[in-house]
Amino acid sequence: MRAAERAQLAMMLEVCAFPKPGNVDRCHDYADTRLEHFLASTIFARPAFEEAERGEGRIGEIIKHAVQQTSIHGGGNTHFGAFILLIPLVYGGNIAGARRVIEKTDVSDAVAFYKAFGMTRVRMHESDELDVNDPATLAKLRDRDMTLLDVMQHSAANDMVAREWVTGFPLTRRGADLLHQSGPGRESIVQTFLALLATEPDTFIIKKHGRGVALETMKKAQEVLDGTRPVEALDEECIASDINPGSIADITIAAIFVALGEGWEWDS
Amino acid sequence: MRAAERAQLAMMLEVCAFPKPGNVDRCHDYADTRLEHFLASTIFARPAFEEAERGEGRIGEIIKHAVQQTSIHGGGNTHFGAFILLIPLVYGGNIAGARRVIEKTDVSDAVAFYKAFGMTRVRMHESDELDVNDPATLAKLRDRDMTLLDVMQHSAANDMVAREWVTGFPLTRRGADLLHQSGPGRESIVQTFLALLATEPDTFIIKKHGRGVALETMKKAQEVLDGTRPVEALDEECIASDINPGSIADITIAAIFVALGEGWEWDS
Repeated sequence: MRAAERAQLAMMLEVCAFPKPGNVDRCHDYADTRLEHFLASTIFARPAFEEAERGEGRIGEIIKHAVQQTSIHGGGNTHFGAFILLIPLVYGGNIAGARRVIEKTDVSDAVAFYKAFGMTRVRMHESDELDVNDPATLAKLRDRDMTLLDVMQHSAANDMVAREWVTGFPLTRRGADLLHQSGPGRESIVQTFLALLATEPDTFIIKKHGRGVALETMKKAQEVLDGTRPVEALDEECIASDINPGSIADITIAAIFVALGEGWEWDS
Repeated sequence: MRAAERAQLAMMLEVCAFPKPGNVDRCHDYADTRLEHFLASTIFARPAFEEAERGEGRIGEIIKHAVQQTSIHGGGNTHFGAFILLIPLVYGGNIAGARRVIEKTDVSDAVAFYKAFGMTRVRMHESDELDVNDPATLAKLRDRDMTLLDVMQHSAANDMVAREWVTGFPLTRRGADLLHQSGPGRESIVQTFLALLATEPDTFIIKKHGRGVALETMKKAQEVLDGTRPVEALDEECIASDINPGSIADITIAAIFVALGEGWEWDS
């Protein structure tokens, strides 16, 4: 299977897997963002993934293209974090390749990335010095000659997706290992999602609700894994409180991409 | 939106729409064919749709490519009928264009189509003289210099998808009109599916269960539209009896493709 198709398949499989507490899945929509929006983005991102697959062009530009291509529906940004992980993975073919690709980013990647960021409604950590809404930020990036990897370093403390870039994709790796351990088929995606949710505070939840809520969600996910809390109950709690572990979902997508490339079978 | 993407979007929207009595939808899988198989086919068919979009190559070959590209998962054939309708529609851009494309098919298209047919598990009308499992059929096609349109003429009495080719896509047209009338959004897809199901005996049901069952299903679909039978009840009955209106689903996909090209909005 081509790397571009593998990325699309990973996005499709992740959003269909259910029940995933708090996130859009086969059984739940958000009011403004529905299953169909996620699947439309999966279709529309193809040219950007093909660009990455050819290994031409620059990572920052390709991430921007993916955001542009998937911004044509009303569901808002569905996959910004996933693209940040998938584009270097598709470009490099696997985690080792993605690390090499990331090392080669420069200030032009950082600028393109910030332009992509500005097109999304993704929220940043408060009082960020490199605020996406501040017109002076692009000049700062250029003055400091920051690479896209530098930008991710800047965000790593508050964003687990950025942290994957800086630390060499350890959670993506762990997610792929969990998929292999759980065996083939879509149930393993839910298990992997829950296992990551139980062990890592989701930075998307932290930005929206604070660290306490993220830690509480971790604890409850562990109770689901321990069999002391029904997964449906956690799902309902998350939905009622608008808690959606969006960054864990992004990392799960990257993990599916990697696992598929290592022979993990989705179709059983 | 590109025609290839419009075809993929139509396939995605159709399979997600729910509840569609008897068919795979967001809430129901078949034992061997699941939502993910349909969505994987939607992703994997992209190169065939791009081929059709470029308007190069032959229709029969492109249908064969679509079947080949989507046969790499274990869910079996998911969209053979849909490809028969979508490939000329993408090639020609709309119904008028598809009619012109179909007129130009020749015996090479017929042969390629039969090879594609042989890769699927789609059943034919019993005692068909041009049996896909009979090695002599390809020689018969060549001896008689049958075009792919001739093949569809041969099948039109027993197959409503083939009939669309021969009669100029009237049900596809009606489906697109129903979408426009029902208004934007995914609810209209269910309405269109039910309206077609209530007025046309599904030939896929006829091949599997006989004409009586198809007519009975029509009547029940009309009762759903009249509000005297809950759609969930019809869904459960169909699933319990293995009644799946697969050809109406194929025509619904073609109708969504046409309606999207005429400005119908899926995203609201």
